[in-house]
Amino acid sequence: MQRWRHTVYAIVEGGQRGYPPGRAFDLFLVTVILVNVTAIVLGTVEDLPAFWHGLFSHIEVVAVGAFTVEYVLRLWVALEDPRRIYRHPVIARLRYALTPLAIIDVVAILPFYLHLLSVPIDPSVAVLLRALRLFKLLRFTGAFDLVGEVLRNERQPLLAAAAVVSVALLMVSTLAYMAEHEAQPDKFGSIPAAMYWGIVTLSTVGYGDLTPITPWGGALTGFPVVLGVLCFALPAGIMASGFIEELRRRDFMVTWHLVAKVPLFQRLSAARIATVASILKPVRIEAGAQVVRKGDAADAVYFILTGALEVETPNGPVVLGTGEFFGERALLDSGRRSATITARTNCDLLMLQAADFRHLLESSPDLEAEIRRIAAERGAKSRQAGAESPASA
Amino acid sequence: MQRWRHTVYAIVEGGQRGYPPGRAFDLFLVTVILVNVTAIVLGTVEDLPAFWHGLFSHIEVVAVGAFTVEYVLRLWVALEDPRRIYRHPVIARLRYALTPLAIIDVVAILPFYLHLLSVPIDPSVAVLLRALRLFKLLRFTGAFDLVGEVLRNERQPLLAAAAVVSVALLMVSTLAYMAEHEAQPDKFGSIPAAMYWGIVTLSTVGYGDLTPITPWGGALTGFPVVLGVLCFALPAGIMASGFIEELRRRDFMVTWHLVAKVPLFQRLSAARIATVASILKPVRIEAGAQVVRKGDAADAVYFILTGALEVETPNGPVVLGTGEFFGERALLDSGRRSATITARTNCDLLMLQAADFRHLLESSPDLEAEIRRIAAERGAKSRQAGAESPASA
Amino acid sequence: MQRWRHTVYAIVEGGQRGYPPGRAFDLFLVTVILVNVTAIVLGTVEDLPAFWHGLFSHIEVVAVGAFTVEYVLRLWVALEDPRRIYRHPVIARLRYALTPLAIIDVVAILPFYLHLLSVPIDPSVAVLLRALRLFKLLRFTGAFDLVGEVLRNERQPLLAAAAVVSVALLMVSTLAYMAEHEAQPDKFGSIPAAMYWGIVTLSTVGYGDLTPITPWGGALTGFPVVLGVLCFALPAGIMASGFIEELRRRDFMVTWHLVAKVPLFQRLSAARIATVASILKPVRIEAGAQVVRKGDAADAVYFILTGALEVETPNGPVVLGTGEFFGERALLDSGRRSATITARTNCDLLMLQAADFRHLLESSPDLEAEIRRIAAERGAKSRQAGAESPASA
Amino acid sequence: MQRWRHTVYAIVEGGQRGYPPGRAFDLFLVTVILVNVTAIVLGTVEDLPAFWHGLFSHIEVVAVGAFTVEYVLRLWVALEDPRRIYRHPVIARLRYALTPLAIIDVVAILPFYLHLLSVPIDPSVAVLLRALRLFKLLRFTGAFDLVGEVLRNERQPLLAAAAVVSVALLMVSTLAYMAEHEAQPDKFGSIPAAMYWGIVTLSTVGYGDLTPITPWGGALTGFPVVLGVLCFALPAGIMASGFIEELRRRDFMVTWHLVAKVPLFQRLSAARIATVASILKPVRIEAGAQVVRKGDAADAVYFILTGALEVETPNGPVVLGTGEFFGERALLDSGRRSATITARTNCDLLMLQAADFRHLLESSPDLEAEIRRIAAERGAKSRQAGAESPASA
Repeated sequence: MQRWRHTVYAIVEGGQRGYPPGRAFDLFLVTVILVNVTAIVLGTVEDLPAFWHGLFSHIEVVAVGAFTVEYVLRLWVALEDPRRIYRHPVIARLRYALTPLAIIDVVAILPFYLHLLSVPIDPSVAVLLRALRLFKLLRFTGAFDLVGEVLRNERQPLLAAAAVVSVALLMVSTLAYMAEHEAQPDKFGSIPAAMYWGIVTLSTVGYGDLTPITPWGGALTGFPVVLGVLCFALPAGIMASGFIEELRRRDFMVTWHLVAKVPLFQRLSAARIATVASILKPVRIEAGAQVVRKGDAADAVYFILTGALEVETPNGPVVLGTGEFFGERALLDSGRRSATITARTNCDLLMLQAADFRHLLESSPDLEAEIRRIAAERGAKSRQAGAESPASA
Repeated sequence: MQRWRHTVYAIVEGGQRGYPPGRAFDLFLVTVILVNVTAIVLGTVEDLPAFWHGLFSHIEVVAVGAFTVEYVLRLWVALEDPRRIYRHPVIARLRYALTPLAIIDVVAILPFYLHLLSVPIDPSVAVLLRALRLFKLLRFTGAFDLVGEVLRNERQPLLAAAAVVSVALLMVSTLAYMAEHEAQPDKFGSIPAAMYWGIVTLSTVGYGDLTPITPWGGALTGFPVVLGVLCFALPAGIMASGFIEELRRRDFMVTWHLVAKVPLFQRLSAARIATVASILKPVRIEAGAQVVRKGDAADAVYFILTGALEVETPNGPVVLGTGEFFGERALLDSGRRSATITARTNCDLLMLQAADFRHLLESSPDLEAEIRRIAAERGAKSRQAGAESPASA
Repeated sequence: MQRWRHTVYAIVEGGQRGYPPGRAFDLFLVTVILVNVTAIVLGTVEDLPAFWHGLFSHIEVVAVGAFTVEYVLRLWVALEDPRRIYRHPVIARLRYALTPLAIIDVVAILPFYLHLLSVPIDPSVAVLLRALRLFKLLRFTGAFDLVGEVLRNERQPLLAAAAVVSVALLMVSTLAYMAEHEAQPDKFGSIPAAMYWGIVTLSTVGYGDLTPITPWGGALTGFPVVLGVLCFALPAGIMASGFIEELRRRDFMVTWHLVAKVPLFQRLSAARIATVASILKPVRIEAGAQVVRKGDAADAVYFILTGALEVETPNGPVVLGTGEFFGERALLDSGRRSATITARTNCDLLMLQAADFRHLLESSPDLEAEIRRIAAERGAKSRQAGAESPASA
Repeated sequence: MQRWRHTVYAIVEGGQRGYPPGRAFDLFLVTVILVNVTAIVLGTVEDLPAFWHGLFSHIEVVAVGAFTVEYVLRLWVALEDPRRIYRHPVIARLRYALTPLAIIDVVAILPFYLHLLSVPIDPSVAVLLRALRLFKLLRFTGAFDLVGEVLRNERQPLLAAAAVVSVALLMVSTLAYMAEHEAQPDKFGSIPAAMYWGIVTLSTVGYGDLTPITPWGGALTGFPVVLGVLCFALPAGIMASGFIEELRRRDFMVTWHLVAKVPLFQRLSAARIATVASILKPVRIEAGAQVVRKGDAADAVYFILTGALEVETPNGPVVLGTGEFFGERALLDSGRRSATITARTNCDLLMLQAADFRHLLESSPDLEAEIRRIAAERGAKSRQAGAESPASA
């Protein structure tokens, strides 16, 4: 039972981590979501021939079936989450069921079951709830986590910007109400009505259904509106910059995991690995350029971020790709490069210079001892295997 | 009397600094402001039942009462402001009364008292002045200071951008006036009228109430308008980037205050603390990772920006949170870590490497002597207390 | 004669460099420009009473007089420009007369003289040429140079973005023409007409005078328009980022000039000063904090970017402001601070740490020798004067 | 034959690399494209006199002729591409023919030949295909590669943003459909119709042909639309920042190539050159400033990014420009500057300090030996030539 659960967990949650059956599972669900949401959207077009509406009903049944199975599976394997805090299986599952994504999963299939149970539900509301299924997509692209993280990180500036925007909106709307409510009582008859105009204007949508007609109102569209438009640009700027910064932070985590995979560094603590990751220097190499040459002094180790490189070995070329590294010998002794390595494509590498690394070692003799020991072990293993990995160039 | 004043000052001005009674006071006022402004906004909707308009009047009375008390309190405790320059109580209070926020506070409650005194006041103007109460919100979010600081910092680029925008606006409007004033004398009859079109167009609001109809006017909406739109994007870009930069500067101040709180650094001068703050390296640790391990060489001290960490002590886990630090022993001797510390949540830490710190000490022997002395004192105190803080891991 | 010319040159061109009579001259001209342009703009409002139109005519005469005198003066003193290349006075002046700003100066006053000489000129064109006077403003704010520099620096990305935008515009317009030219032959009858729609849409102005009405046209406003809007956002982003970068570069020049003013550095070459400027660390000090304390080791020199600081001297406090520096003694010997210096306002300082500076000296023994010599000279001078500047704290 | 092919390859593909006959070839084609596309665009204006339409036909014939020749030439010389992978000439050419730019080249001239062969083709489609010729422009500005590279680099964030935008669009459109489809069944009758409104609104185009009229719909234009507009700003921000970052990366490649051209560095591996390039410090020098002075210690080598400098030599001034470097002697011995070098214009230089360089050498004794050897060779050559290049100042 528990073994089964573990396997299902790997499939259901492993797609993002690149586990192939997990990716197939994700791909299947993404397809169902896209087809189903398209059917829901087109289902509101009443002139379509009855054939299509029939098809859409069938798609709905299949999709709700798939989503129900998915939900039950996720609930079942919630116990396998290594980050779970509560040990009791019921509490752990309840906790999962209360996460935002799990709630959306339930709410999005609810209209179908309510309809089955003949519970009356407003068709408009049903459409809205069913459309929520698109949110499930965000789980698979990682965008849900990403946006959540950005909102959390930029909480303070966004709140400050929201306060500025609210004040700007109220001030501009009140001014418009003052100027226009006598000339256009049907359009600017109250501040809430003027606020509709304010939002449409300050967001620069500018439908033109409400426009100032008095000279005062026209003049008003000048200075304060320009200021208001500036204020409305603030949250967009903050969101965009927060988004980009969070993506850079994730790039750093990728680097971190890359470093953590190197045998030499595997036993280091998280912070120590972060230090190593932060002294890596990004290097971009053009396709065709030689990164290391046989016989050169080995003075740096390289981690491959993107691109492919070719190692010239006596047994023909060996290709290294994203996530691999080469030249680690440089960190242990000042030997010579044993092979020439050429960039096949434009490559982004991270270079750890031996000198920087030695500088780091000086400040922590412990790390040095550990590395000497690991290196000795590794050398012994290497001699045992009678071969040398191309990564030791 | 003076003790009372000091207590009231702590409550009235201490919310931003996290003093709990001050936060309660702020929360109360924020609630009153939001309820009151909502009532003012809805009060302009004339079709609402009389019950609501009655309720709004009551809210107004309560809110004005609260704001009046608040204003009097702030005026009273203005003497406690540690940054005040003038010693004479009347001058110090007058000076406070003339700050922009204090003026807004008075102006926003003025219509109520003028009405009470039967001074005739235009109802539109009264609504506008009352709506100013929303500005009070900015005091509590810190957004008022923030925007002011950004405007001050980016003064020069904003002025340059404003000059560029003005010239672009006048040129585009004059061209539109030339092209259209014969075809549409009612809409483009003068340059000021064309400038209304210019602002609506260049800010990309684009209502569509004024549009070019002549071929020349249409062609005009091409090249110069595109250039003009580019120019209008400048101030928004400057504001957004200034906003983000100011927030980063404030993050630095948070770091600075974090460092200033460490006993070792408390007696350093402001500039020396800034130096320490600037050599701190940001490190992001994922939930579950070990930051330091018992028995490792202690080679860095960590300051917690966000997140929680758990120290494994013989008496069970101890949790460290934002603003705390650990591992400071590393700066004094090259001892071993006495406990393992694990990240409970994703954490942002600032790491001060012993090597960097020693490098700093080399250039200022004074600082070293001071630290040796403080460390000796602290060690003695620690031995006296017979215990060791978890922060000394 | 030449002495007079030199004095006039200092007044006419010295405003930007802070020479007081030059600033008065600039202020006078800026006032004339603003008043005159306002008069030109309002002069197109035909309903204004005759009095105003009369006033505007008088303003025009005075303004053209002032601008003519200004132009002649600038032409006369063009010989004094230290950067001029041609020695012959006529050629040097001709060269000045052909700079963009000088051409605008002539063109902007031309309509007046043409009218005087009874040369017929279209009144619309005359208004346009007169409105060009606003461009003169850009000379005084430095915005003209700034925008020119940004366009020059970002030439390549802007050209690439312009190519992308043109292709996007043509493609979207051609698609709209295909979809709509049969349904709306009056609005989308040709590609040029559709391009008017394309510009209005892709710049997000969106008047709404031309909108797609066919289902294909509606669908078209979807994907390609969203892509097109993205492309149109490129040049705005490039301009804004180029603007901010250029302003940062100018900040560096301010630092450079600040460093170049320090007696110790005055004889260094430009590149050497740039090196010193680049190792300065920005430090922000809050009002009230002590930057250096009497008796501390003098280990850094500070340059004041913004804000004011107070030196406690036996003769009372001395205030230091923007552009001044203190603590330079730290670069010469490792003496003690002779006074405590406190920040009066929030200050942005640049700190040059003695250690960094010594590191720089190690790599260029020449610089060290030069500094020793200057320091010796300066010490002698200081002893002669019998006083020590507060900047030597 | 092969020699001819090589020459033609140099002309056809060498324009971007600055080969003069290649630039002439590019200029000719760019002119033909611009004239031809203008003719195509104006050709859709039906009221133009017959003369023009005749002229446009002639332009079409000439242009298609030129493009056909260009296509055949490019296909012929595809074998010369040094990056080609397949050796077989037919496969190599087929591979070229299937690149996006080559496909566009064919498709854009197809309508002409189809018309010649009397194959019926919809005139609208023909116009669209012919308008594709503008895409050819992107080849010459490098913008095609640039946009492709940005899309590739920012793939992940753009996908995440696209998911967020799609969800926001569907949610806002569904809400609008719910609120408005009863009040305005002709405009908001289905979700696809509401999505047209959603795109027009969230991209802030805001035509105003569809606007909410119910109170609920109006309220809706508030909160979710503001959020949606924020989401729509994400991809624009990512594109702009990716564009700027890619341009910076290309600047780094320019630096890299600049460094790679220095004789001293020519034999280094790509990664080693990248290291040298990354320790270069940008320095901006104002026109007229002295960069090095005769007799100073030679402690840095300078690479010229932009601007011109003047070397004072006994034989009169020698001018150095973009791509040149000076002061390389500083890397070999600590000699004295042999000439004063002054900036003629504002210059952007890259400075390689001798100290940084020596620091680099310490960590790779190999590099040092190589440099000593090259320096010895170069010195011998210099003595042979009996002259010294001004770049050795």
